[in-house]
Amino acid sequence: MRIDVLETTLRDGVQAEGINYSNEDKLALIGLFDNLGLQFIEAGNPAANPKDKQFLCDNPLPETAVSNIVAFGATRRKNSLSDEDLSLKTLVQSNAKYISIVGKSSVLHLEKVLDVTEADNITMIYDTIRYLSDNGKQVFFDAEHFFDGYKLNPDYAISTLRTARDAGATVLVLCDTNGASMPEEIYDIVKKVKHTFKKTKIGIHCHNDSGLAVANTLAAVDAGAEHIQGTFLGFGERCGNCNLSTAILNLQLKKGYEVVPSEAVKRFTVTARHVAEITNISLPKNVPYVGRSAFSHKAGMHGDGVIKFSPAFEHIDPSDVGNERRFLLSEVAGRAVFAKKAAAVCPDVELTTEDISTLLASLKVAEMQGYQFEGADASFRIFILKALGLFKKSFDLVKFNVISNLPAAEEESAVADIEIKVNDVSREARAEGNGPVNALDTALRNALSGFYPVIDGITLLDYKVRVLNSEAATKAKVRVLITSSDGHNTWTTVGVSTDIIEASWLALCDSVEFILAKRNIG
Amino acid sequence: MRIDVLETTLRDGVQAEGINYSNEDKLALIGLFDNLGLQFIEAGNPAANPKDKQFLCDNPLPETAVSNIVAFGATRRKNSLSDEDLSLKTLVQSNAKYISIVGKSSVLHLEKVLDVTEADNITMIYDTIRYLSDNGKQVFFDAEHFFDGYKLNPDYAISTLRTARDAGATVLVLCDTNGASMPEEIYDIVKKVKHTFKKTKIGIHCHNDSGLAVANTLAAVDAGAEHIQGTFLGFGERCGNCNLSTAILNLQLKKGYEVVPSEAVKRFTVTARHVAEITNISLPKNVPYVGRSAFSHKAGMHGDGVIKFSPAFEHIDPSDVGNERRFLLSEVAGRAVFAKKAAAVCPDVELTTEDISTLLASLKVAEMQGYQFEGADASFRIFILKALGLFKKSFDLVKFNVISNLPAAEEESAVADIEIKVNDVSREARAEGNGPVNALDTALRNALSGFYPVIDGITLLDYKVRVLNSEAATKAKVRVLITSSDGHNTWTTVGVSTDIIEASWLALCDSVEFILAKRNIG
Repeated sequence: MRIDVLETTLRDGVQAEGINYSNEDKLALIGLFDNLGLQFIEAGNPAANPKDKQFLCDNPLPETAVSNIVAFGATRRKNSLSDEDLSLKTLVQSNAKYISIVGKSSVLHLEKVLDVTEADNITMIYDTIRYLSDNGKQVFFDAEHFFDGYKLNPDYAISTLRTARDAGATVLVLCDTNGASMPEEIYDIVKKVKHTFKKTKIGIHCHNDSGLAVANTLAAVDAGAEHIQGTFLGFGERCGNCNLSTAILNLQLKKGYEVVPSEAVKRFTVTARHVAEITNISLPKNVPYVGRSAFSHKAGMHGDGVIKFSPAFEHIDPSDVGNERRFLLSEVAGRAVFAKKAAAVCPDVELTTEDISTLLASLKVAEMQGYQFEGADASFRIFILKALGLFKKSFDLVKFNVISNLPAAEEESAVADIEIKVNDVSREARAEGNGPVNALDTALRNALSGFYPVIDGITLLDYKVRVLNSEAATKAKVRVLITSSDGHNTWTTVGVSTDIIEASWLALCDSVEFILAKRNIG
Repeated sequence: MRIDVLETTLRDGVQAEGINYSNEDKLALIGLFDNLGLQFIEAGNPAANPKDKQFLCDNPLPETAVSNIVAFGATRRKNSLSDEDLSLKTLVQSNAKYISIVGKSSVLHLEKVLDVTEADNITMIYDTIRYLSDNGKQVFFDAEHFFDGYKLNPDYAISTLRTARDAGATVLVLCDTNGASMPEEIYDIVKKVKHTFKKTKIGIHCHNDSGLAVANTLAAVDAGAEHIQGTFLGFGERCGNCNLSTAILNLQLKKGYEVVPSEAVKRFTVTARHVAEITNISLPKNVPYVGRSAFSHKAGMHGDGVIKFSPAFEHIDPSDVGNERRFLLSEVAGRAVFAKKAAAVCPDVELTTEDISTLLASLKVAEMQGYQFEGADASFRIFILKALGLFKKSFDLVKFNVISNLPAAEEESAVADIEIKVNDVSREARAEGNGPVNALDTALRNALSGFYPVIDGITLLDYKVRVLNSEAATKAKVRVLITSSDGHNTWTTVGVSTDIIEASWLALCDSVEFILAKRNIG
């Protein structure tokens, strides 16, 4: 059976403590989810959040191959008409064809929170969905507190669904808003709902307050739900939403449902790591299927067992989901994967077994220092070329000196002086900046521009800082990621140091070296 | 119904990547689990690990009020006699009265991993358990790969259980060793096993490779298991073991089983935080029931709802498990949440509606600049006091100057000069550091120390950097979070600027101002 997915990292995910996204982040996430073939991406609440309004109403929607962008909103206010309700007008104006509308299904919440009568709530649901449908939108009805409400008053909860369906909603999404329900309750209630609404698609939206959001989502699908909602890594308010990466892989690999195109399954691990990177969090190592430890073997007995017969202590083949087996006390981790990656960097060079061993040893040293080349393709390339002795520098640093003042001594708060050499010709440059890294970046470009005019066409698109051992406080190591563009290509580089200026410098250098090397070849 | 718990953080938990415990750690953990009234604590594998041997055989067992210490081991080698098997001898010598014995229940693993015949395996199970029982031990039989084995050859899997029971095992523990099973499979198989062994206690031991260890444990209990195994925070190899804090609270609070004494439930949150501290990890914020975000409300609508009626968006009362409700301040937080937080900062001041409006307007400005006070309580306090005109500075900055060099001009790569004033007395200081922020931090402390000796007792615990509009690249704004401690209390402060030095400076200042203000009051 075919199961639809609605991904809501950009809407419900940002309710998580400490998570927020820039416009660029949102576009990158949508690209990732589209690339997995997820049918729906809920991208914001335009009536409640000005940034979401800009994204969904003012700008054209990003182009996607598969995914449909969904805007989220609530039922209209109790004493307004739909066509005079500002929020609903905003939803109509949004460029999204699909709209999720949340409405109340629990009598308890009508009385205690919303202060509307049961009858008024029904009218609000009907009017809202009807108005949006009449204006050409496809509407999903998110029945808030559905399970808790059903346990209190099943007739009323069902009547909210009936109203939504009659008003034109195409999916009735049952929400375990507080994450309070047990799988057997979810199963029984979804079964009854499906029995009542045989022809309408039923959806499920679970929160993880009891650690059961994935189990509850599976139970709902087994009971007849054909549309699941969640966030790819489980981000969400309180304990989070259903972790879609786990739920989808369980449904597809363990239970035989069709959820994503089979070739997308292999991209789950790399997608999870990109989502974490964009969110600026470390992906917890023990996340099912996609975490770095998900197929790591520490116990000697288990390690031996896996070497003799890999299903001994693995529930699936890690490569099926793009992950890899790791032996924590062994040297053989990921050798084949690594060899493949290294070979792709220099396709003209035949890499010997010794080359691979040398590269792996260098990689271990770099990783110990805090480097991680996942998502820093350009630095990985330079790293491989350096380790093989194939790297040719485009310039040498003689020295730099960056001064930060408060109060600002000059126009700007920072000034950088730099001296570089290209083929023994030295050049000095100076630049101010609104911070030390900005000043250093500008000074480097000024110095290089005379030698390599191509530098003038390079812009930095993105600058990220991750503190690695944050408990070392201001002595901690930082990892800086810089994404650059020449207008056609983008590339990402990485630098690591206890000194943020030096870490940024290393990433800046790699960025410049990468494009200059490319230029030489091309 | 009464459910026994076997806690195995000290045995299966240490299979997790990066986790290991000293002798003191072990004693502290045993004390915590005993204090919760858990019946069994599996404390190590004395035959495989010399430290565990010392702990379980050489030293007297720690005194406990409730918990029984359990030693873990495997069935004897295939060609030895039980009373000549070194491992079994070690188990007999251990001071633990209870022994968990793992044996194989899957025909596949006999053939592919252990290379013993089905009949030999049965003998090994029988001899091992008989020998230990005859030597006065109570034995739990861990039936490894039981569920996978049952699916392949149910008769053989059952015959291993029958053998164990006949040899004297008092609990038959069914293990989902690879974490591969779905809850409905667990339920069905446990049901059948329970039907076969009506008078013997059935146990369940689940791994989390499919994100279902808690759900599977609940399913097993519903099907008749009366003994559950796991680790308090879910530590374990690969994706971890069943998270006992979640499983126990679900069983006890949601499903009505008796698992721990009812007064122990309130200690779950503080226990979780102690376990994390002993393990030297940060407890993930979103852990069900006990995480710091488990009852945190960010969305305006949700926050307002919870204030009106707390069960609106909470599945239980947080104080039941010793946790607390938190309202996060963010773009999406509502007025009611904010007023409550502001009032808590200055309980002696009656805040008028205008005060709240003024504060909210200031908050909006700060948030537009990139400030976010969620998780930066100390800066929030200073922000409120400043906005109300109640803040009294402890020092003034005259100027600072921070120089970063590459190659490093001095010993370290950065040097900071600072001048401050306290009550018109000015003081200069200089410090080197392994980066500009470290140098500035040290210089500030050097300058302040003469005026405020309390500064010498403050340490920085954590330093985090988040680039806000990372697409502005090196011109981007950064938000710095610093967590400080005086040995008893910890507090977090925030600074925002395009200049990382300035952002760090602002957070450092708030940290110092916070503790000095506290000092003045106290």
